[in-house]
Amino acid sequence: MVRLGVLTSGGDCPGLNAVIRAVVRKVERHLDGTVIGFHDGYQGLMEDRYDVLTIDRCRGILPKGGTILGTSRHQPYGTPDGVERVRATMSRRGLDGLVVIGGNGSLGAARDLGEDGIPVVGVPKTIDNDLGATEVTFGFDTAVATATDAIDRLHTTAESHDRVMLVEVMGRHVGHIATWSGIAGGATMILVPEEPFDIVEVCDTLRRRHQQGRYASIVVVAEGAVPVEGGDLSLPDPGVDQFGHQRLGGIAHLLAPEIEDRTGFETKVVVLGYLQRGGSPTATDRVLASRFGVAAAETAADGEWGTMVAIRAGRIIRVPLHEAVAEPKQVARDIHDVGKVFFA
Amino acid sequence: MVRLGVLTSGGDCPGLNAVIRAVVRKVERHLDGTVIGFHDGYQGLMEDRYDVLTIDRCRGILPKGGTILGTSRHQPYGTPDGVERVRATMSRRGLDGLVVIGGNGSLGAARDLGEDGIPVVGVPKTIDNDLGATEVTFGFDTAVATATDAIDRLHTTAESHDRVMLVEVMGRHVGHIATWSGIAGGATMILVPEEPFDIVEVCDTLRRRHQQGRYASIVVVAEGAVPVEGGDLSLPDPGVDQFGHQRLGGIAHLLAPEIEDRTGFETKVVVLGYLQRGGSPTATDRVLASRFGVAAAETAADGEWGTMVAIRAGRIIRVPLHEAVAEPKQVARDIHDVGKVFFA
Amino acid sequence: MVRLGVLTSGGDCPGLNAVIRAVVRKVERHLDGTVIGFHDGYQGLMEDRYDVLTIDRCRGILPKGGTILGTSRHQPYGTPDGVERVRATMSRRGLDGLVVIGGNGSLGAARDLGEDGIPVVGVPKTIDNDLGATEVTFGFDTAVATATDAIDRLHTTAESHDRVMLVEVMGRHVGHIATWSGIAGGATMILVPEEPFDIVEVCDTLRRRHQQGRYASIVVVAEGAVPVEGGDLSLPDPGVDQFGHQRLGGIAHLLAPEIEDRTGFETKVVVLGYLQRGGSPTATDRVLASRFGVAAAETAADGEWGTMVAIRAGRIIRVPLHEAVAEPKQVARDIHDVGKVFFA
Amino acid sequence: MVRLGVLTSGGDCPGLNAVIRAVVRKVERHLDGTVIGFHDGYQGLMEDRYDVLTIDRCRGILPKGGTILGTSRHQPYGTPDGVERVRATMSRRGLDGLVVIGGNGSLGAARDLGEDGIPVVGVPKTIDNDLGATEVTFGFDTAVATATDAIDRLHTTAESHDRVMLVEVMGRHVGHIATWSGIAGGATMILVPEEPFDIVEVCDTLRRRHQQGRYASIVVVAEGAVPVEGGDLSLPDPGVDQFGHQRLGGIAHLLAPEIEDRTGFETKVVVLGYLQRGGSPTATDRVLASRFGVAAAETAADGEWGTMVAIRAGRIIRVPLHEAVAEPKQVARDIHDVGKVFFA
Repeated sequence: MVRLGVLTSGGDCPGLNAVIRAVVRKVERHLDGTVIGFHDGYQGLMEDRYDVLTIDRCRGILPKGGTILGTSRHQPYGTPDGVERVRATMSRRGLDGLVVIGGNGSLGAARDLGEDGIPVVGVPKTIDNDLGATEVTFGFDTAVATATDAIDRLHTTAESHDRVMLVEVMGRHVGHIATWSGIAGGATMILVPEEPFDIVEVCDTLRRRHQQGRYASIVVVAEGAVPVEGGDLSLPDPGVDQFGHQRLGGIAHLLAPEIEDRTGFETKVVVLGYLQRGGSPTATDRVLASRFGVAAAETAADGEWGTMVAIRAGRIIRVPLHEAVAEPKQVARDIHDVGKVFFA
Repeated sequence: MVRLGVLTSGGDCPGLNAVIRAVVRKVERHLDGTVIGFHDGYQGLMEDRYDVLTIDRCRGILPKGGTILGTSRHQPYGTPDGVERVRATMSRRGLDGLVVIGGNGSLGAARDLGEDGIPVVGVPKTIDNDLGATEVTFGFDTAVATATDAIDRLHTTAESHDRVMLVEVMGRHVGHIATWSGIAGGATMILVPEEPFDIVEVCDTLRRRHQQGRYASIVVVAEGAVPVEGGDLSLPDPGVDQFGHQRLGGIAHLLAPEIEDRTGFETKVVVLGYLQRGGSPTATDRVLASRFGVAAAETAADGEWGTMVAIRAGRIIRVPLHEAVAEPKQVARDIHDVGKVFFA
Repeated sequence: MVRLGVLTSGGDCPGLNAVIRAVVRKVERHLDGTVIGFHDGYQGLMEDRYDVLTIDRCRGILPKGGTILGTSRHQPYGTPDGVERVRATMSRRGLDGLVVIGGNGSLGAARDLGEDGIPVVGVPKTIDNDLGATEVTFGFDTAVATATDAIDRLHTTAESHDRVMLVEVMGRHVGHIATWSGIAGGATMILVPEEPFDIVEVCDTLRRRHQQGRYASIVVVAEGAVPVEGGDLSLPDPGVDQFGHQRLGGIAHLLAPEIEDRTGFETKVVVLGYLQRGGSPTATDRVLASRFGVAAAETAADGEWGTMVAIRAGRIIRVPLHEAVAEPKQVARDIHDVGKVFFA
Repeated sequence: MVRLGVLTSGGDCPGLNAVIRAVVRKVERHLDGTVIGFHDGYQGLMEDRYDVLTIDRCRGILPKGGTILGTSRHQPYGTPDGVERVRATMSRRGLDGLVVIGGNGSLGAARDLGEDGIPVVGVPKTIDNDLGATEVTFGFDTAVATATDAIDRLHTTAESHDRVMLVEVMGRHVGHIATWSGIAGGATMILVPEEPFDIVEVCDTLRRRHQQGRYASIVVVAEGAVPVEGGDLSLPDPGVDQFGHQRLGGIAHLLAPEIEDRTGFETKVVVLGYLQRGGSPTATDRVLASRFGVAAAETAADGEWGTMVAIRAGRIIRVPLHEAVAEPKQVARDIHDVGKVFFA
């Protein structure tokens, strides 16, 4: 019999509910235990705000985006007495351990809690797919599907008007969503943070394409794409919002007039933004999230604390949390190159 | 036997290809005639650039967005010798008449061509659904579907983070897309051009909602929504782009920081923009477009020039082109009121 | 202040929840009244099984298919003391009247209840779109969208294998879904109950098409399509199931080997069946259902019992229930003919 | 400079066009070679029927289901002089080698051609995901997405009517689609070929569920699911059709009355059939297919004949064709078990 707390932390991501449901199902039905869910990530854990999660409570949530628990970016190590409050809640609720579903930052806190003696199992969550310790995470497939659907739509409108369309997708530090949706959507060009772009080359490519009679172009731009240093273009820093979050780059809105000015081609922008976080998870993400949830419950029942569940070569594995948190995983060279096969 | 030219003019819109295909099918199969399609709207007509359209050429285009003919905003009355060039092309190609698929501006030109003795049948095209002479036009249903799908997605992410989300949809002069997608998507509030909004009221509503424990709100904003004159808010004019098009308003990006400042609620923006013009037409739009295309061919074969096909009470009718072009049709009071039933 | 009972009766249909939500919203927020919802159609009304429906209870149901109230085909006039039980429940619950959401059969019972002195407002529900008193009903648009999506998918597989595909869609007595989805999906041929088909002609058409080099064909068949009497084909009666429901026709499975035998063309079948009833309602259906729900609440508040809400020429109207229940509305001649423009 | 022939063989599958496009793109743009595409699989190869495939010819095919080349089940080793004809075509067209996109049977023929001295590179295609040499193949993700979408739809109709719904999905020998879509769709139970089912247990589970007040159930059945031998149920062999193809099982239609009889619960059937093969490939499948196409072209350019491209742990690899063709890969134990966590 095991007694677990679960929480979702950081930006929301399709598949969170599927993980929660799987943890609850596995624990209640097969491990004879109970699960409580903390509200709004670590914040609810520190403030002892929670719901008891039963199989009945989790009915119908599998296909729903978002998280029934709510989420926040608060973390125990950024809060006075944060770790003490976590310990207090866990003791008050008689918990054997925690399942923390989160990205790099939230799992870093989970690792630190583990080192401070609090039993934690991590589940990787990053819509950007930038966690190196797992081949892939849930949410990414849905985000790519959403972005690809948008690119599909924009082709016909670009072609009807002979336009350049810039599609800005998520990816502050890495270009996984841009690369995958760009390949899947048949983009003319894909600009990613891993490889700074040269505005002169971008415009040359578009001009060459026009000379071949291809007047419509779709350029997929990761929000973190940057011009090459010392190149012909420099961009202002968009700064942070009042909540201290780095603003979404707006790179596409900055690029479009540059391209229009240099080429004379009408250039329009679509920023997908929050659309990529929303919606029902794809079947693929629901399966992966369900597998992660079941595996996290098993890991906790085995007492293998301080680990994160992950997937490699189609198999669920357990990796130490301190290995899980690292530099963002970049787009693999070979996939990047596949994208380029289709450029222009 | 009839010999027709067809063209698509103005902004692209899902269903244009379905109209073209239906005209061709009806003319080639049932009226023993031929159809040629001019490129890029009136521009191709003036420059005599065209394709012969056959049933074979039109295979597979029914479910495709955009227009295989291309489109532009050029018009004969804005071009030196424009009308003479139209006459020259028609005579050179031996055409009995034209089918012009376009919105208010393009149909105005069609009406004027008709008055100048050129045989024209109009087909109404406006994604905004603002043409009074027809109950509805193709493209609107698809745009509403796209916007509603986006709103559906944003609900879960809004709820996971307790945010206000502003969704900016098309509608410069009228709020049909905003009203329909807002009702269909379960919006908290809908801001339309027909009824200037009071920023104080908007914020009060959001605050009242928070007091009831509803921390997530979706506000649908038509791009042409404006604050009440003399109210607590005035917005800058976004101006025109280098092609002389009025810029998309950016009203949502202007509103969001206002709401954040006044309420303290985190407020995020998604601008749907060109996504609403793209994609495969809905079944409803394909049927309507096909009916319009067949009816336009019949109207031309009947020699009823100077008319536009339209739909009222489920029946296809023919209306004089000079009646068709008028003030934008506003959202009907009763639908507007239905939207308000669900506010906040 | 008004106190209403609401129930959903007959086959389920996308949009039922949107009607329920709109009734509740209008009554609770604007009419200062209350609504209770009976379980499983008239059965719950007779057995006094119900839920109190509040705005809170109805959150999140707008985009959901099915009905949160459940439904059944039981009717008071087919149940001993049925009408007395209805009266008893209404008096016990202090109801001013009922909102019955149902099709031809259920609305017939509503009309009879009205004539027996029970205050009823009807809301038309028929996925088949066969109610004459309203131009259209919710659920139909979703069913057509689902069928069209299926036909879209089958085109590529039919073409890859040079096959005839028969797609069986709903429509026992009328061919609205078949006609609309057939036009929207670009079908080769559409077989509807209104016009018995001649198997010889069907096969001739397919052969002619092959001779033109078009080896793939999609034939949309309404489940109630029948061969011409005295023609070259007669089909067995599929009979009723153990619950007394007429079995779904199986017409496509009977037709396929006939076509294969007569033409030698490989012929495959897809029966869409329950897929057409399921899923989230389209934006169009959600708006119509919301308008009907608001209008039904207003009609009840006005005490206009014995009427049904309907839509004509884009406006919501009220019609007497006894006019609403009639012979099934057939596919309009002009739409039928539009379908034929695209045959083969 | 390389000169390649490409063909698609066996049942169609979403992603085939993406492979073709990627081969052509890589060869024409980066390897300075040319590609011709044979019609209707090996049949066109033997009969020397082909199209020259250029980048221009392949525009717009990325998101399209099916195969622009057509496909068939004909194979050289089942045709008199088949191998000689292949050799003759290849010599006549001056081909360096072939890219064969096909499943187990077609790749077996490719392996044999290789052993007979004909240079071949294989690309794995199986919607069932039953090829052991690759972790996954394109088409599977789309089929799972389609099946999951169908299950999502059926939940609400099942719940509105308190029904058991049997959903029959593809999978003659293995239950990958059933297992993945069953997990993703939240199925009550999943019946797969790998584990014969006991009808008594199936009915017990449904009854137990009813006793818990869960009256609606969705059972996903792979078409190749079979009852346990010696159990309480035996099913007739559906036989082969006139083209010699084993008929689609019809297992769901046989099971439904059994379940109805034994439990008294209304039980309905939906057979997804060809819907699973159709439609636009998911983003995931488009990326995988594009990667396979690029890799196949590179493999051919490298002269590594007799190999098949595959994916393992996220990386594209090359495996000998004789290893690729083997016993069908069964559903991995751990995924199978995850499915069971959610049963009933």
